[in-house]
Amino acid sequence: MRLSLTPSTEPTDYSFSHQIRTRFAETDAMGVIHHAAYLPYLEEARVALLRHLGQPYHEVRASGTDLVVLEVFVQYRLPLRFDDLVDLHLLAGAVTGTTFQIAYLLTVAAQVRATAVTVHGATDANGRPRRLPRLTGLTQFMEP
Amino acid sequence: MRLSLTPSTEPTDYSFSHQIRTRFAETDAMGVIHHAAYLPYLEEARVALLRHLGQPYHEVRASGTDLVVLEVFVQYRLPLRFDDLVDLHLLAGAVTGTTFQIAYLLTVAAQVRATAVTVHGATDANGRPRRLPRLTGLTQFMEP
Amino acid sequence: MRLSLTPSTEPTDYSFSHQIRTRFAETDAMGVIHHAAYLPYLEEARVALLRHLGQPYHEVRASGTDLVVLEVFVQYRLPLRFDDLVDLHLLAGAVTGTTFQIAYLLTVAAQVRATAVTVHGATDANGRPRRLPRLTGLTQFMEP
Amino acid sequence: MRLSLTPSTEPTDYSFSHQIRTRFAETDAMGVIHHAAYLPYLEEARVALLRHLGQPYHEVRASGTDLVVLEVFVQYRLPLRFDDLVDLHLLAGAVTGTTFQIAYLLTVAAQVRATAVTVHGATDANGRPRRLPRLTGLTQFMEP
Repeated sequence: MRLSLTPSTEPTDYSFSHQIRTRFAETDAMGVIHHAAYLPYLEEARVALLRHLGQPYHEVRASGTDLVVLEVFVQYRLPLRFDDLVDLHLLAGAVTGTTFQIAYLLTVAAQVRATAVTVHGATDANGRPRRLPRLTGLTQFMEP
Repeated sequence: MRLSLTPSTEPTDYSFSHQIRTRFAETDAMGVIHHAAYLPYLEEARVALLRHLGQPYHEVRASGTDLVVLEVFVQYRLPLRFDDLVDLHLLAGAVTGTTFQIAYLLTVAAQVRATAVTVHGATDANGRPRRLPRLTGLTQFMEP
Repeated sequence: MRLSLTPSTEPTDYSFSHQIRTRFAETDAMGVIHHAAYLPYLEEARVALLRHLGQPYHEVRASGTDLVVLEVFVQYRLPLRFDDLVDLHLLAGAVTGTTFQIAYLLTVAAQVRATAVTVHGATDANGRPRRLPRLTGLTQFMEP
Repeated sequence: MRLSLTPSTEPTDYSFSHQIRTRFAETDAMGVIHHAAYLPYLEEARVALLRHLGQPYHEVRASGTDLVVLEVFVQYRLPLRFDDLVDLHLLAGAVTGTTFQIAYLLTVAAQVRATAVTVHGATDANGRPRRLPRLTGLTQFMEP
């Protein structure tokens, strides 16, 4: 297990945020958002962070690098419900030559719903591991 | 609209069948299987049909041809529920030089739940339309 | 088959629009958005229309009525790709005492990508069909 | 973080297994199975384990208990691809009065692809935490 970040439950500890609205298609028979639906939310927020950095993910991919998910951890604290506006707070950290991590806090109207951590590596277009590309500006979204 | 097949509600009118079990992740807050989940069921059954024909879809793709969905129609008659064992009955038809269609009947314990039709074309690996590959044996799964 | 609307490919023929951005999770191995992902897009746009009408879907549901999908038809004209901003144009029509239909046009930067039609009915919380609730204002989003 | 199990990469360390076949709908534009698709695989395997124990999940739910996911961890070691037959090996453990954990090993033709751990609790039908129901026989699928 590489994941080492401990996500804070305090939004001000994070450096970037992105809002999504849950979909009815993402609910399940318990009447809440299914736990698997959170992973695309985290991914959408990462893509928004890269766009914000001026390095849209489709350009990263076009340059021959895929960013792959090596590990994911989610802690579900309170359910998300249909039509919730979810604020995803992100903080990068634990950067090495080949991997970086993102910590996440999910809130709805400032109430904590979930925390998460993802670990990422880079591969070439054939899936072979390679060094991380230079993600200019990512450091300003990192933990101090 | 190209779709021209009219799916029968009689299982014996179909030439191939494939069984799936619904997943909890596919339910929604109404307590039934979400309507979008049916499309991957139809796709899984088409893939099973190609495998049955001795032409697994990954081999069709490896030969440079993608089979794309041009149109889809689903009629939801009675809900599918979590853990249902669904029999998908398939019949090919309306084959031209560039498109073919599949009609579907979905039953659970012989009770009709849904019918569907999909229209397919072929493209090369860059998404450009091309003539259909020879899908040996597909004709035996066609309407008379 | 109940569906009777013919979706126009002219955005000005529609009365409501809603924008979504495609997700990487919705792509498939052909490098485009998987055809099943369109159904949650249509649903998200319907939910946005109800919210715009001042009748959020969670309030419709809380009042004891579920709006169910009876039929869906999608025509895929050109692929959607990762990170596309998709404008979904909607028009209601074919309203009866128990069903209504929505026609959809999907465009990216004004280029037509797909058209669709859905047919809806109402049920009580136990899934039994009932008459449509009064969706105040829906008529102003209908075809003339 | 409650999760405490360390999943072994040795199939013989597990007590139950369930096979699934990946779907084309679950692939992404990198040509492999999207990382979010693994969570429904884990869930399908848990549901198969409960069925094997003679306590199908729909019966557990009908008795008024929902089993909820409190935490999930997945380590992606090698990609899954379209049409892979995936063996999911499961082992229960770390049972307390209110939570239990499941460790998972995912293999394809005996090659390790991923490991995972989920932490579960029980709620009543309104989402309020309650003690775990008696899952008869679960202990025989636990680590010694």
